[in-house]
Amino acid sequence: MTKVKFAVAGLGRIGKIHLENLLQMDQVEVVAVMDPMEECREYARERKIPHIVNTYDELLVVAPFDSVVICSPTDTHADYVEMAAKAGIHVFCEKPLDLSMQRVVEVLKVVKETNIKLMLGFNRRFDKEFRKVHDLVKQGAVGQPHLVKITSRDPGAPPVSYIKQSGGLFLDMTIHDFDMARFVVGKEIEEVYAKGAVLVDPAIGEAGDIDTAVVTLTYTDGTMAVIDNSREAAYGYDQRIEVFGSKGMAQADNNYEDSHRLYTGKGIQGSLPLHFFLERYAAAYKSEMASYVTSLKNGDTMEVDGTDGLRSLQIGLAAIKSLREKRPVKIEEIGN
Amino acid sequence: MTKVKFAVAGLGRIGKIHLENLLQMDQVEVVAVMDPMEECREYARERKIPHIVNTYDELLVVAPFDSVVICSPTDTHADYVEMAAKAGIHVFCEKPLDLSMQRVVEVLKVVKETNIKLMLGFNRRFDKEFRKVHDLVKQGAVGQPHLVKITSRDPGAPPVSYIKQSGGLFLDMTIHDFDMARFVVGKEIEEVYAKGAVLVDPAIGEAGDIDTAVVTLTYTDGTMAVIDNSREAAYGYDQRIEVFGSKGMAQADNNYEDSHRLYTGKGIQGSLPLHFFLERYAAAYKSEMASYVTSLKNGDTMEVDGTDGLRSLQIGLAAIKSLREKRPVKIEEIGN
Amino acid sequence: MTKVKFAVAGLGRIGKIHLENLLQMDQVEVVAVMDPMEECREYARERKIPHIVNTYDELLVVAPFDSVVICSPTDTHADYVEMAAKAGIHVFCEKPLDLSMQRVVEVLKVVKETNIKLMLGFNRRFDKEFRKVHDLVKQGAVGQPHLVKITSRDPGAPPVSYIKQSGGLFLDMTIHDFDMARFVVGKEIEEVYAKGAVLVDPAIGEAGDIDTAVVTLTYTDGTMAVIDNSREAAYGYDQRIEVFGSKGMAQADNNYEDSHRLYTGKGIQGSLPLHFFLERYAAAYKSEMASYVTSLKNGDTMEVDGTDGLRSLQIGLAAIKSLREKRPVKIEEIGN
Amino acid sequence: MTKVKFAVAGLGRIGKIHLENLLQMDQVEVVAVMDPMEECREYARERKIPHIVNTYDELLVVAPFDSVVICSPTDTHADYVEMAAKAGIHVFCEKPLDLSMQRVVEVLKVVKETNIKLMLGFNRRFDKEFRKVHDLVKQGAVGQPHLVKITSRDPGAPPVSYIKQSGGLFLDMTIHDFDMARFVVGKEIEEVYAKGAVLVDPAIGEAGDIDTAVVTLTYTDGTMAVIDNSREAAYGYDQRIEVFGSKGMAQADNNYEDSHRLYTGKGIQGSLPLHFFLERYAAAYKSEMASYVTSLKNGDTMEVDGTDGLRSLQIGLAAIKSLREKRPVKIEEIGN
Repeated sequence: MTKVKFAVAGLGRIGKIHLENLLQMDQVEVVAVMDPMEECREYARERKIPHIVNTYDELLVVAPFDSVVICSPTDTHADYVEMAAKAGIHVFCEKPLDLSMQRVVEVLKVVKETNIKLMLGFNRRFDKEFRKVHDLVKQGAVGQPHLVKITSRDPGAPPVSYIKQSGGLFLDMTIHDFDMARFVVGKEIEEVYAKGAVLVDPAIGEAGDIDTAVVTLTYTDGTMAVIDNSREAAYGYDQRIEVFGSKGMAQADNNYEDSHRLYTGKGIQGSLPLHFFLERYAAAYKSEMASYVTSLKNGDTMEVDGTDGLRSLQIGLAAIKSLREKRPVKIEEIGN
Repeated sequence: MTKVKFAVAGLGRIGKIHLENLLQMDQVEVVAVMDPMEECREYARERKIPHIVNTYDELLVVAPFDSVVICSPTDTHADYVEMAAKAGIHVFCEKPLDLSMQRVVEVLKVVKETNIKLMLGFNRRFDKEFRKVHDLVKQGAVGQPHLVKITSRDPGAPPVSYIKQSGGLFLDMTIHDFDMARFVVGKEIEEVYAKGAVLVDPAIGEAGDIDTAVVTLTYTDGTMAVIDNSREAAYGYDQRIEVFGSKGMAQADNNYEDSHRLYTGKGIQGSLPLHFFLERYAAAYKSEMASYVTSLKNGDTMEVDGTDGLRSLQIGLAAIKSLREKRPVKIEEIGN
Repeated sequence: MTKVKFAVAGLGRIGKIHLENLLQMDQVEVVAVMDPMEECREYARERKIPHIVNTYDELLVVAPFDSVVICSPTDTHADYVEMAAKAGIHVFCEKPLDLSMQRVVEVLKVVKETNIKLMLGFNRRFDKEFRKVHDLVKQGAVGQPHLVKITSRDPGAPPVSYIKQSGGLFLDMTIHDFDMARFVVGKEIEEVYAKGAVLVDPAIGEAGDIDTAVVTLTYTDGTMAVIDNSREAAYGYDQRIEVFGSKGMAQADNNYEDSHRLYTGKGIQGSLPLHFFLERYAAAYKSEMASYVTSLKNGDTMEVDGTDGLRSLQIGLAAIKSLREKRPVKIEEIGN
Repeated sequence: MTKVKFAVAGLGRIGKIHLENLLQMDQVEVVAVMDPMEECREYARERKIPHIVNTYDELLVVAPFDSVVICSPTDTHADYVEMAAKAGIHVFCEKPLDLSMQRVVEVLKVVKETNIKLMLGFNRRFDKEFRKVHDLVKQGAVGQPHLVKITSRDPGAPPVSYIKQSGGLFLDMTIHDFDMARFVVGKEIEEVYAKGAVLVDPAIGEAGDIDTAVVTLTYTDGTMAVIDNSREAAYGYDQRIEVFGSKGMAQADNNYEDSHRLYTGKGIQGSLPLHFFLERYAAAYKSEMASYVTSLKNGDTMEVDGTDGLRSLQIGLAAIKSLREKRPVKIEEIGN
């Protein structure tokens, strides 16, 4: 069995997760990693990665490999994907490709011309809970879907410095929910109405963003989805979904630290949801990378592709416009 | 102990419930009932109600009583309340008082001038589930409320003939949720954005109404509520609430037929929610009437008063306007 | 429609419940009640019961009636049933008929000879949770039943004075579980092994009883049931059941004060089970009496009859013997 | 950092799990494995284990190592532990050490004399669910423990050939529950009463074993535990625990495939428990080995030691004696 040769660009929190998962796959060989920080390179050295470099330019020439996993900062994604594509290297890229529609369109053009495979890191599609609901919907278990409800709340707000460059709530956080809204019922969004508020931290408001939101999405068939977000849930990471349809409803709950129940004279107590995405989605990251590697090996269509990145960005930009203009915004207003 | 003398106007489904509950109260004596239909009067005869008449005019003079419970059709509510008020009789009236803001304002003026007590039948406020969440919020258990989520779905659509005269989804069904949104956090609504669709029955659309909706409410303090409705949930009556705040979240679930779980090789099965409002809110109707009677006897402020009816109607009318004009509508646009 | 004429003997806690339920039935007329205590007779007077007397002898002659409901102290049950039977009056009697096997056999002989109907008050058979599991088992949903598990814990121990005359844990509390073990799978018990301890209150031990127990029952087909009891559960009344069989398992949970969940940084909290039997079994008492009245009117076999009382007593006596002799005891050792 | 050098003896199902977990630990180096089967040695070759041999004799001399993980058949455990001990090698051994009390006592004597560390593979102690209940009990959350309830059912019976050499239900399956009964409340068992039946497969009965059991354990302080077992639960692996005490109750539920709920007109459905021990205890096996390695490195007392193996065996043998002699059996009757 020939192993697929991989490089990893960026060994931050997510990069390390992808690297560990790749190292456990029989059909994969990680030949090189790149990170500008010494401590990340040291991390790679302990794992005996053959080639360890400081820059993406070096990475592309240090050794031959079939695929690169891009986990560097968002503003490098577009360039790195293009560079890999032009070198004939397949790409797994963390979302988003870019915050500009125009730039994303350009990159996808290069991807298409170079005929490389591109997969976007919408990890939640590989979470067993969301996937189960998706599968039930696909099997017709709820009939025709009428309403999708997504609750998505983080345990705490990121630093304001991060928010300033991330594109804000709708582009760094809700974008996952926009993708989920499309994925879970396999339908496209036509219109967005976003309402938001600054309730968690005034500094977020001063930075021009919101921290709490309710977003109503309308699919092209007139059915609806509603997403509610908060940057700070006191009880931890809250990630639930519900699809209501003509024949019933499918729900998925959070994953909890454990299932215990303690009954005392004061009431019944249980454990909290898994604290944040690293805990909740640990298995999803593994499945995601396995899906990518399998698709690569079999020459299959990627489960999440560049268009999925484009669509989520469109919805996010429409949400921002809706919030600013206090009106529902059609996706077509965002352009393509 | 002097008993409070009651009359009941209208012995339809709800009228019968209120009558039964009144008959079981030690401090109440039901002296008269009125219904234009013979079978309803026969129902009263079996219960040995002293005076049984055909019309509201007759009712008001057949015997002296302290309070009337109005369960007749919606279009009679305003007149009947006014007539009772002018006769110095206290009133428990099923919601809504009227579908016209102007008429409601007129009636409330008469109520005020005559100094009678008026309670509106927003029964869900007396449901133990909703009340528990309300109490937790009031005690500060979730901190400052940021988001309210209400799911409210009926097991099946009413006849189109009913919808044509009821004012439609927002005035006959969501109006309960509008009241709940105000009640559960004790805050007023400032703005409404309503999105709807006809997904259950095209005849409802032909009658000018919708059967599925997502409504975003903004409170005067900038926090939000979102309501989702459907006229037809295949699995029965779905009535849930969630309040998310700075310190946590409080939820209430449906009430189920029973708690059984059946584990077989095919999965785990359980029973459905109680089928509809008569089952789910049986105890709430009892508590509601007990609250009314107690407030009457003690001369207390009513737990739900005319203003609560007025506010819910305003929100409903704003929702209709929002749906038609495809934009968020301020409550102040509806007038008072 | 001719109404069935009823008398109620004994207006303690349970007597009052039965009286209220009877008063709400259209097909029933309560013509007389008896209680030696003035305050109980006053309670009856407020409900306008036509005949109110002090003694059972008076009751039997004060007015003609079809059926008596016996809720007087346990040591009067046998005599009262016999007296009613000899007067041709049908009987609903609270359990147990008597603590002596011999006396129970005598009474059942009289019941048979006089051809009256007798129903025993094993109210839990009418609880919707237990009945659901019973029905699922009967329908074959779990296949052949292999194991029955019953958890039955009270919120607090009764006074030691009560325990001294009640026959102790196995005869005043577990006897309900013995009946349930027979009912839920429709099989008879052949052998009992009881293990117990005094863990709640030493005074209970000094009175010769235990307050905590694990009882293993073997059915005549070799399958098993296990019951665990405690006189004092800090969190309230704990009444659960589980039937495991060749094709699956059916469980029923407690009924809770409400379904709320409160999520905070400290964990998730919910409400306790309904506190005690009056709350948990309120609906079951109503269904039980309805069943009795319906069986009476239709001349049907009683859902719970004298033999059910006899069998539970046998099991209870076998449990006491097992505990004392520290060995499994066959039901046949108890005699009949 | 010096790595701890490991060997693994036996690469069956459990051996492979331990090997994989060891390979992922930074502080561990697996230097050798032994298995008599070629396919297992091939498995090791793919993982690039330096030394791969056919026999335990060869293993002990092929290279120096600090610890051996013994996952070979039960009848080799005692000899292998002794041989390792005499070679000054620490041991992690799958349970049971042996089916004979005398042989276990001999082995533990050697372990003591040679002063090596020995840990027994009671993996469930490292399951997050059981551990949480253990921790809550230890913290006093339920007060004084009065009753322990353990449900332990396998998804299907092993081959009768396995049962013939395993020691039967109580020694190959319930032995985990006996250990759990001791662990969860930190108390020793004094008496056992076992009742069993052949309900799953007559061939198991013909082999002299049972497939369904209820076992009542009495702790030295007079409190009780009850275990129920079945070789075949149609719905999969059922592993639950409950500790009831003076101040409350702590429970842990199964782990489920996912949390979804599907509501349709027919009822509510959910996913089954994780199918068997490999799925349910995957994380527990990892934690178990981490605990062993950490204790080794730090020179700490092992979390599960030889005495724990001895005690569980005693209880198992007492259960067998109780079943045969149809009476409660004191642990002291088994000897030491």
